[in-house]
Amino acid sequence: MAAYNLVLIQHGESAWNLQQYDANLSPSGHEEAKRGGQALRDAGYEFDICFTSVQKRVILTVWTVLNAIDQMWLPVVRTWCLNERHYGGLTGLNKAETATKHGAAQVKIWRQSYDVSPPPMEPDHLLYSNISKDRRYTDLPEDQLPSCESLKDTIARALPFWNEEIVLQIKEGKRVLIAAHGNSLRGIVKHLEGLSEETIIELNLPTGIPIVYELDKNLKPVKPMHFLGDEETTQKAMEAVADQDKVKK
Amino acid sequence: MAAYNLVLIQHGESAWNLQQYDANLSPSGHEEAKRGGQALRDAGYEFDICFTSVQKRVILTVWTVLNAIDQMWLPVVRTWCLNERHYGGLTGLNKAETATKHGAAQVKIWRQSYDVSPPPMEPDHLLYSNISKDRRYTDLPEDQLPSCESLKDTIARALPFWNEEIVLQIKEGKRVLIAAHGNSLRGIVKHLEGLSEETIIELNLPTGIPIVYELDKNLKPVKPMHFLGDEETTQKAMEAVADQDKVKK
Repeated sequence: MAAYNLVLIQHGESAWNLQQYDANLSPSGHEEAKRGGQALRDAGYEFDICFTSVQKRVILTVWTVLNAIDQMWLPVVRTWCLNERHYGGLTGLNKAETATKHGAAQVKIWRQSYDVSPPPMEPDHLLYSNISKDRRYTDLPEDQLPSCESLKDTIARALPFWNEEIVLQIKEGKRVLIAAHGNSLRGIVKHLEGLSEETIIELNLPTGIPIVYELDKNLKPVKPMHFLGDEETTQKAMEAVADQDKVKK
Repeated sequence: MAAYNLVLIQHGESAWNLQQYDANLSPSGHEEAKRGGQALRDAGYEFDICFTSVQKRVILTVWTVLNAIDQMWLPVVRTWCLNERHYGGLTGLNKAETATKHGAAQVKIWRQSYDVSPPPMEPDHLLYSNISKDRRYTDLPEDQLPSCESLKDTIARALPFWNEEIVLQIKEGKRVLIAAHGNSLRGIVKHLEGLSEETIIELNLPTGIPIVYELDKNLKPVKPMHFLGDEETTQKAMEAVADQDKVKK
């Protein structure tokens, strides 16, 4: 039997194409968050605390969800540890630009590897001082804010926060909502399900759809993640994740 | 010279007329918050931490402001202590209904007194179980959530939070934004300026307009509060507050 419920939600479409450091939600990303919130409301979900990154596409997502479920008064803990992977020198480039600049073969390596980092963000990058001087990161020890991250690096800073902060709340019986990004959420999913590096690379979590885990008292899932939403939405999400499963086997 | 800046903002118009316990912002209340946020953005304000109540008209105000100043990642501390005064049995009644039910003379006494409470909210009140069973208040000691409050009562629970939590942050050099309600803000203003009970009753703070205090190192204002916004807006706010000053002298 499940001792705890945990809900994850990934932000939806953002205003820049890809890999932008602090992109806003697009109108359709807003709609995704609203639908996700409505699905939680319709299923009667109540939370005690929310965790999110310090990036606005996810903060806007959690605000939209809290508004939809009329629980705006919940504490929201924002942490850099749940940020999206830092794509380094690739930040701000779309898929085509990345392929032109670095070659399709290299892009494939970055996409398919667990521990290969993209090139670091150099000081001449348009966003370099934007990020390195951003007030929200000034409390970090100097060597902690990376200039690029592999998936492994991303997970290596998301998981300690999971273990030290979020687990504590769950074990106190707090009902937790985590709104975050594709790669920080992969870290949590990999850990919860004990997935291999190869498997987690292939796993693309659905966006804007509440992902529910039922966990036993040792925080092990008692059944596969499931999705909240209308039949068509959840069916699609299940099929997409199942297809990924097939690929990796 | 000022050692610290402090910004207060009162939520604007809410969707119910008056004294509703957890009213939403009206569209025009949203606009007020947006203009307030834009005034802060135009003046280049940066904050380190925000404090607000657990009532949604104020949480929506602080979200709107944080969005306007692009500082959504700031920590936001929500506390019951900054809630609006609990109007007890008057909750949900508009001015006319209150006068009809209780008589104009009694309404005047409630309006003009510092320590006279409205009638308590009785168990048969439409919102009684709504509020008394609200999850956001379950952590409060049983006798702490009141069933009605005078202005004195409101200030008596707002000020300890000011003294114990907010002052600490200001003295650490944190730039603080407080989004709250007419009466909880009155508590802070009364304390900062050392106003009498008679004076604070007459003081109606402007809504949706950032109210700036420059404080010395003992947190005493070095000059009168001032307002941020376009000339017309700030002029009106100044005149309104000055008129109140005249009345009370």
